[in-house]
Formats: sequence, structure tokens, C-alpha cells
Amino acid sequence: MTTVQVDTPGGSYPIHIGPGRLDHLAHSIPQDATAIAVVTNSTVAAHYAQRVQAALEQTGKRLMRIELPDGEAYKDWQTLNLIYDALLRNRLDRRAVLVALGGGVVGDICGFAAATYMRGIRFLQVPTTLLAQVDSSVGGKTAVNHPLGKNMIGAFYQPIGVEVDIDVLATLPQREVSAGLAEVIKYGLIIDADFFAWCEQNVAALRRLEPAALAHAIRRSCELKAQVVSQDERESGLRAILNFGHTFGHAIESGLGYGEWLHGEAVGCGMVQAAELSQACLGLDGASVERVRALVQAIGCPVQAPDLGTSRWIDLMQVDKKTEGGTLRFVLLPEIGRAVFQPAPEAALRAVLERAATHPA
Amino acid sequence: MTTVQVDTPGGSYPIHIGPGRLDHLAHSIPQDATAIAVVTNSTVAAHYAQRVQAALEQTGKRLMRIELPDGEAYKDWQTLNLIYDALLRNRLDRRAVLVALGGGVVGDICGFAAATYMRGIRFLQVPTTLLAQVDSSVGGKTAVNHPLGKNMIGAFYQPIGVEVDIDVLATLPQREVSAGLAEVIKYGLIIDADFFAWCEQNVAALRRLEPAALAHAIRRSCELKAQVVSQDERESGLRAILNFGHTFGHAIESGLGYGEWLHGEAVGCGMVQAAELSQACLGLDGASVERVRALVQAIGCPVQAPDLGTSRWIDLMQVDKKTEGGTLRFVLLPEIGRAVFQPAPEAALRAVLERAATHPA
Ligand SMILES: NC(=O)c1ccc[n+]([C@@H]2O[C@H](COP(=O)([O-])OP(=O)(O)OC[C@H]3O[C@@H](n4cnc5c(N)ncnc54)[C@H](O)[C@@H]3O)[C@@H](O)[C@H]2O)c1
Ligand SMILES: NC(=O)c1ccc[n+]([C@@H]2O[C@H](COP(=O)([O-])OP(=O)(O)OC[C@H]3O[C@@H](n4cnc5c(N)ncnc54)[C@H](O)[C@@H]3O)[C@@H](O)[C@H]2O)c1
Ligand SMILES: [Zn+2]
Ligand SMILES: [Zn+2]
Repeated sequence: MTTVQVDTPGGSYPIHIGPGRLDHLAHSIPQDATAIAVVTNSTVAAHYAQRVQAALEQTGKRLMRIELPDGEAYKDWQTLNLIYDALLRNRLDRRAVLVALGGGVVGDICGFAAATYMRGIRFLQVPTTLLAQVDSSVGGKTAVNHPLGKNMIGAFYQPIGVEVDIDVLATLPQREVSAGLAEVIKYGLIIDADFFAWCEQNVAALRRLEPAALAHAIRRSCELKAQVVSQDERESGLRAILNFGHTFGHAIESGLGYGEWLHGEAVGCGMVQAAELSQACLGLDGASVERVRALVQAIGCPVQAPDLGTSRWIDLMQVDKKTEGGTLRFVLLPEIGRAVFQPAPEAALRAVLERAATHPA
Repeated sequence: MTTVQVDTPGGSYPIHIGPGRLDHLAHSIPQDATAIAVVTNSTVAAHYAQRVQAALEQTGKRLMRIELPDGEAYKDWQTLNLIYDALLRNRLDRRAVLVALGGGVVGDICGFAAATYMRGIRFLQVPTTLLAQVDSSVGGKTAVNHPLGKNMIGAFYQPIGVEVDIDVLATLPQREVSAGLAEVIKYGLIIDADFFAWCEQNVAALRRLEPAALAHAIRRSCELKAQVVSQDERESGLRAILNFGHTFGHAIESGLGYGEWLHGEAVGCGMVQAAELSQACLGLDGASVERVRALVQAIGCPVQAPDLGTSRWIDLMQVDKKTEGGTLRFVLLPEIGRAVFQPAPEAALRAVLERAATHPA
């Protein structure tokens, strides 16, 4: 087991990474907790809910399970209300603790429920997808979707801890593994060129879920994310670099309809587009753009953007929170391992978007 | 104009108190704001929206109005969604500023919208009821109601400023003035015996809205609230004393159905009950209990609790957030001007509640 510490103004907490963590969750529940509610979804519950509940029973505390339907489509107010209803009907008080057992959808919605139930109760993240383990469970972003935009309703709210059990990835569909790896290589691209090179060399081991490779990739990803988030919890500056590939990615997700591409797949493809835009705007060299494209392909994510039509692309990107005062801004790479956040000239952006049209997906 | 400063971990901001503040709102909008949305309700808009918008036009910024239906019944998710919808349809970004123009209902719901829209945007409080000016606009509590409980969904989220225009109280119904005065005398009861005595002497001037008395009462209330909130933003300890009378009051509001009694009226009556409970539990002297009852009556609030039935009373109080681990805790007065927060023996509580039954409202 290895620990990565996260320190933000909103809270400090450990991320424990290792095999078998599900069986040790009792240690992460504070003494003064009055009750525990495990928030999960039907798919994850079928695999792990009993083990998690057995582990939590060791606390001797009142324990309940809230099982949500599975899917990004349910990351909405109605599902959030299922959580509020269950908590209120069972009279959980301000010292209750929520446990988010699942991928990013469960983590985001459970985190937002924790942030807003009685103006905030504690919650523990137990991420079960690779994407959630390396990204969404760390840093305190919580949200639900709104019909007019993804993650539009949310809060910055830190968990009291993150328990990453690498064993649970064994049951994860291969496509989800690929999507998670997209966020892993993102950290290399924006902050750590050596880690990017390590990913290039270990991509096969990672896709086979070899424990040593996996543990290293997750730990380094969490360290890098923790480092960024510690400096800028509320995304007023630096934290924006974590959105590398995401302005394109979010447009793909909402343009095709959520669920068509996985978040990580859209981000994978979006990183290739962002690398192309970096070439046009900042002179990122062509060989680096090709390294990005090759690794995104090697992890099993799409590299060819869908043809949404240039004006629709721009329209979709403008809804993204990264728009400020109407000007589109992008995370761009002057070189692999370094990122900047700045406006991009419209002509360069159009050139990148038109490649989606000339090579329809 | 007088200024009270609020300093909390979640934000520092000024409260400006005086006549004519509505015409000076432009100064409170940050330079980098991309747009301003005035959130108000139909009643308040009829009186003040044009003046407020004229004042805000001086910023030269994009300005919109979001007009909600009037009433506590609309402090819910559906109404909150009207705000989200309007903000998203008009593409307001993370640097937009909301202006809450109205009483506590508008302030709470607009504050929660600000706390959660795109994970948090800035908002300015412009309270137009006495209750909102002395209480709800200060300290960062935001919320909406849930069918299973009042203020159950919310966040601690500080505004960037509070603009208290004492002139707007001229159009406020007398009953609302009385309700606001209940919160004013609350501060005297829990922290400042001299201020309580001052209220006793100035109750007639306050009810007539004499500007000098009003300005003093509002300023002292804001100072006392700011003092408490500065020490305990998230209600982990001290801040609980601000709920003096509220555990009883909330039970009245939800027991009779929201809207039957005004919040401040329920709190007024609840303070009399809490004083009686203080007498039974802490030996608060009978003369002090009578002073509480007399002043609550003098400000025009009810002093006789409704007959909800003792077991229903207890049931309703248990849903309140002040319950922790099933034990009912109350803010009690050892003497006027000093408050403690502690469990009350059930027998004493029942004796107080049974007075509601013997003198049916
Ligand atoms: N909060 C943040 O900082 C942040 C960052 C990135 C993404 N996100 C959000 O995360 C969400 C995507 O998360 P995700 O990719 O984890 O998707 P997900 O939560 O939908 O999980 C993907 C699928 O895998 C299933 N699953 C989860 N764990 C499993 C396991 N161990 N075995 C078998 N099946 C399992 C889920 O039930 C689901 O069907 C998006 O909503 C996105 O907005 C948030
Ligand atoms: N956030 C907090 O710390 C806090 C503290 C106390 C109360 N509250 C909340 O505040 C709410 C009660 O607030 P309230 O008492 O201001 O009620 P309110 O907002 O419903 O206002 C009372 C009535 O007065 C009208 N009104 C407002 N200003 C007016 C004016 N200047 N002239 C004429 N009419 C005017 C309103 O339209 C409404 O009809 C409750 O929901 C309560 O939970 C919050
Ligand atoms: Zn992502
Ligand atoms: Zn109150």
C-alpha cells in the first residue's frame, strides 16, 4: 500500500493505493460518524457491495446502501434526489458519512450530495474505474449534469479520503480501461515528460492490468493531480491545465450525445486535437504531435474526431466552462510535459476542426 | 452609511448599511464581471427592480433579470432550476455575478444557485426584508427546501458583499417587520444583554421604522452575527447559538405547513419556548422568561405555541439538523445575553411542549 497526500484549503486527506483496499475501509470512517451510507450503482454493487458492506460492518455503525441506476444519463438531478430522499427518510444527520463506491459518475454525484446535504457532510471516495482512481476521485470536483450542459451544477468539495483498490479493475470492461489510460497519459503530457515516456514504454503492461505497472501509473497520476490541486483548488488558474483535451472532448461527448463515446475516449481524441492546435499556435513539433496520436491509439482510444460541422463544434465548445467573456481558451502544449492556458486564433482552431470533416469518423 | 466587516475562511466582505444603498450598487460589482443577473421575485421586482437595474447599468455590463414566483413554497428545486436554466440559456460564464434582490427566500435560493452554478460564481446580497438584512444575508448559509425538510439541501457559501438599504423596509408588510424583529432580539438574548435592553426601550421606534433606531438595530445585529460566523463559519460549534428558538420554530413551520406562520414569527414563539426550557434545565429566572415573552409580544409576534401534539412536536424536531445521533439538543440561556448548546432532559422538554396543548392556539 502506498499513500499520496492531498492538501487543499478545503481539506487535507490521504489517497491509499494498493490491492485489497476494499477490505480495509473501516479504518477510514471517523470515530464520531453516526451512520454510513454506501452510494453505488447496480453494476458495481453486483461485484463489490457485499464485500464493502462486510468491511464497513466492522465499525459497528448503522449502515445503509443507496443503489443508483448505472450510467452517465443518470448523473442528473433526479438521481441526486434519490440520494437526498434516502438520507432524509432514514434521518441521517450531519455526522453521517457517505461512501462513493463506483466510477466517476457515482463519485461526482455522491460527492455533490455530500456537499449539499444539510450544507455538507463527510464522504469517502472508493473509486472503481481507472478513470476515477487517477482523476475524478481526487481534487474535490463534484457535479451533476444539466440538460443544457455537462457538470454545470456542482461544487468544490473535498472527500475525507480516497481508497484505491487496484484489484477491482479486473472486472472493468477493456474500453473503460482505455478511457482511464487517456487521463493517465494526460498528466505526462501537461506536467511530466518522463512519465509520458514511461507510459509509452509500459502501455502493453498497463492494458494487461499488470499490478506493478498499474500501481505506479495510478500513484504518479494521483501525485501529479494532487500537486496541481494543492496549488489551485478552485481552478482560478493552474488547475485549468488538467482540462487538456477536455474542451474538444466535452464537445464530442455532448455533440454525439452523452454515452456514445466514453469521457476518456473523447478526452483521448481531444488531446490529439489539442496537440494539433498546439502545433499551429505554439509550434509544438510534428514529432511530438505524432507521439500523442500514437500513444492515444496504443491505449485503445479513438484518434479521429467525429464530423460535427465546424460551426457546431465551436458552438458546443462555447458552452464549456472554459469560455470566459465569450473568448475560447485552450490548454496547449509548447512541448510535451508543459502546458499553458490561452486563447487560440480562430483560423488555427478552424483548421483543426476541419480535419474532423475531411476524415469523417 | 456604516460598514460591518465579515471575515470567514470562506471569504471576507463588507456589509454596507444606510439609506439609498440601492442607487449605489454599481460599486459592488467587480471590474472583471462578465455579466450581472439580478435574481428577484415578482413582489420585490414591482417595487425595486427598475431602480436596481438603472443603478447596475452604470457598470456598462450585460444585465439580465430572473424573476421568481414569490413565496417560501417556491424555495425548491424547481425554482432553483429556473435560475440555472436562465443562466445557461443566456450562457453566463464563471465570471458572471448574481445579485440577490429580495428577502431570505430569494437570498437563500440565489446564494445556493451561485454556490453550485459551474461549481461556484460570485453573488451580492441585497436584502429587502428586515429578517434578511439582520440575518439571512450575512454568514453564507444558502439552501433550498426538500419535501422532507426545510433547508435540507444547501451550502455554506459567502457573498462578495451585502448592501442593506434601510429605505426599502417602508414597503414591507407590518407582519414581516415583526418577524424580522424576532431575529434582532435573538442576538440580544444569546450574546448581548445590553442590546436586548436597548430593544426593550426602542421597540416602538423600531416598529415605526424610525431610521436611527432601525440603522442601529441592523448594524448591531450584523456585528453580532458577523462575530459569531467569523469564529465558526460551518456551524461546528459556536454558530449553533444563532439557532436559539429555531428548533421549536422549525417544528412550528413544518408542523403547520410552511407559510402559515412566518419564519420570524415561529422563531419568536420558539424563543419563548426555549426560554421556558432554559428555566427548567438551567434555572433561568422567571423574570427573564417574562421579559422574553413580553418583548416577543411587543414586537408583534405570537407567544403561544400551536398544539401539534407532544409526540408530533418531538418527531418534527428530530428531523431538524440540530439533531445529532438521535439526541435532541437545544440552545438554552443560563441568563439573558449568554447561550449554551446542549441536550435537554426529555421530561423538561415534554413539560414545555404540553403548555402548547393546554393553551391551544
Ligand atoms: N470530478 C472530477 O474531477 C472528474 C474528472 C473526470 C471525470 N469526471 C466524471 O466522471 C464520469 C466518468 O467516470 P467513469 O469513466 O468512471 O464512468 P462511470 O462511472 O460511468 O463508470 C463506467 C462504467 O463502469 C462500471 N464500473 C465501475 N467500476 C467497475 C468495476 N470495477 N467493474 C466493472 N464495472 C465497473 C460502471 O458501472 C459504468 O458502467 C463523468 O461523469 C465525468 O464527468 C469527473
Ligand atoms: N440563510 C440564513 O442564514 C437564513 C437565516 C434566517 C432565515 N433564512 C430563510 O429566509 C427565509 C425567510 O426570509 P424572509 O422572512 O425575508 O421571507 P421572504 O423572502 O419570503 O420575504 C417575505 C415577503 O416580503 C416580500 N418582500 C420582500 N422585500 C419586500 C419589500 N421591501 N417590500 C415589500 N415586500 C417585500 C417578499 O416578496 C415576501 O412576500 C426562509 O426561507 C428562511 O429559511 C435564512
Ligand atoms: Zn477528464
Ligand atoms: Zn431564523
